[in-house]
Amino acid sequence: MSPAADLGRVLCIITGASRGFGRAVARDLARLVQPGSALVLVARSGPDLRALQAELTESEAGRAGLKVEVVVADVGKVEGLEDILRTSKEAFYEDMDHILLINNAASLGDVSKYVRDFSDMSEVDSYLSLNVSSAMCLTARMLQAFPQHPGLRRSVVNVTSLCALQPFRSWALYCTGKAAREMMFKVLAEEEPDLRVLSYSPGPLDTDMQVEARSKTADQTIKKKFSGMFAQGQLLTCEASSAKLMKVLLDDKFTSGDHVDVYDN
Amino acid sequence: MSPAADLGRVLCIITGASRGFGRAVARDLARLVQPGSALVLVARSGPDLRALQAELTESEAGRAGLKVEVVVADVGKVEGLEDILRTSKEAFYEDMDHILLINNAASLGDVSKYVRDFSDMSEVDSYLSLNVSSAMCLTARMLQAFPQHPGLRRSVVNVTSLCALQPFRSWALYCTGKAAREMMFKVLAEEEPDLRVLSYSPGPLDTDMQVEARSKTADQTIKKKFSGMFAQGQLLTCEASSAKLMKVLLDDKFTSGDHVDVYDN
Repeated sequence: MSPAADLGRVLCIITGASRGFGRAVARDLARLVQPGSALVLVARSGPDLRALQAELTESEAGRAGLKVEVVVADVGKVEGLEDILRTSKEAFYEDMDHILLINNAASLGDVSKYVRDFSDMSEVDSYLSLNVSSAMCLTARMLQAFPQHPGLRRSVVNVTSLCALQPFRSWALYCTGKAAREMMFKVLAEEEPDLRVLSYSPGPLDTDMQVEARSKTADQTIKKKFSGMFAQGQLLTCEASSAKLMKVLLDDKFTSGDHVDVYDN
Repeated sequence: MSPAADLGRVLCIITGASRGFGRAVARDLARLVQPGSALVLVARSGPDLRALQAELTESEAGRAGLKVEVVVADVGKVEGLEDILRTSKEAFYEDMDHILLINNAASLGDVSKYVRDFSDMSEVDSYLSLNVSSAMCLTARMLQAFPQHPGLRRSVVNVTSLCALQPFRSWALYCTGKAAREMMFKVLAEEEPDLRVLSYSPGPLDTDMQVEARSKTADQTIKKKFSGMFAQGQLLTCEASSAKLMKVLLDDKFTSGDHVDVYDN
């Protein structure tokens, strides 16, 4: 069977949508959904988010009727989750046939420290709340708000990392959070056979997070590795990685719960 | 090389020591340390902990000079971590040659729910704080309080589970927390080459946690599996599983950071 040409009439919810990978995904999704679809773009930064909203509203898809809503909110706060759900429910129409949640928002954590430096519980708690609890609770609320019914496809993407599978020195919070998320979404995939759950690892991207990684990583070997990848042009663009995610979603052949890497065939 | 006959003059810190696996480990360690060692037993329940303290103080090891201290504390609270460190520093003598931290305290989480039911961030935050942050911060504080020096062996055990590797329906919190911990300890092992880091999976134990699992698990297939294991006598005793952990520690051949299962050869 050839891959679908589009993702249907979709309600797409994208967290961390104002820049980097999330923004590239929003732009790609705008092109790959049918008229009558809606994007709910979520980020903490209002100006960047509204600029993207304007861009997509004025695009060919926007002129053809794509609705683009923004939620300026912190996904790590209960009120943020409530805002996202309220806007998503308002943006949903009964004739939509696909709900797609992209759990992309994440933080790197303090990579200038080693595990031995993390004596402050509140720092670790905050990190896990933003990077693990929020993804779990947003996903749960989305599933509750849009229950399974015949003709409705529901997909959840967890933006993951090689760090979910491999330990990296001085990246304890990031590795721990990504490993936690990936297991959580594996459990979800086991629990909800109708749901399509994808942990997508976008690869080393040329983003602000990479700048942070190159400048702050405590471990010199890891730091040099990132600097070397940057210098040698080995970082991927967000656009290239998002294109691969779109292909995986259109093909729809992944096993629910699996980790799919940008470099996978 | 034949395995060591004992673990040396050890300062052992054991969380969740008042019952189940933690108590069995405390009893075994009392027998496997040299005179001049100390056990710091931590749990929230005072009476059970003091009963164990009395038992070990009156045992052959106690009569030979093993010091047994108790800390009635919640490892999920900063004050709890402070109490543990204060008592541990007081119990330490310069001629001790081994620091051994057993991160055993853990909770099962609400297994009557599926991921779709976890819409309350505070519930997930609390779970991750007790089961992930506390283990990370206790370990960090221990490493800071007892820095590496020649002649000092330092070992950290993470009590893990098959759930760190495999998703189980309606066990989202437990699987997520165990996967998070295991990755965190893998990062630690990469960061601290002198440290011995072991993630030990004790197997299905005949404990209060198993009673909770058998009675409350939402997923009927998983629930029946546990009931079946109980009915057919397939659950391990805490003593048998602790004995295997002692063997692994005495042999000291594991690769630091590895997951070692009770059933491994």
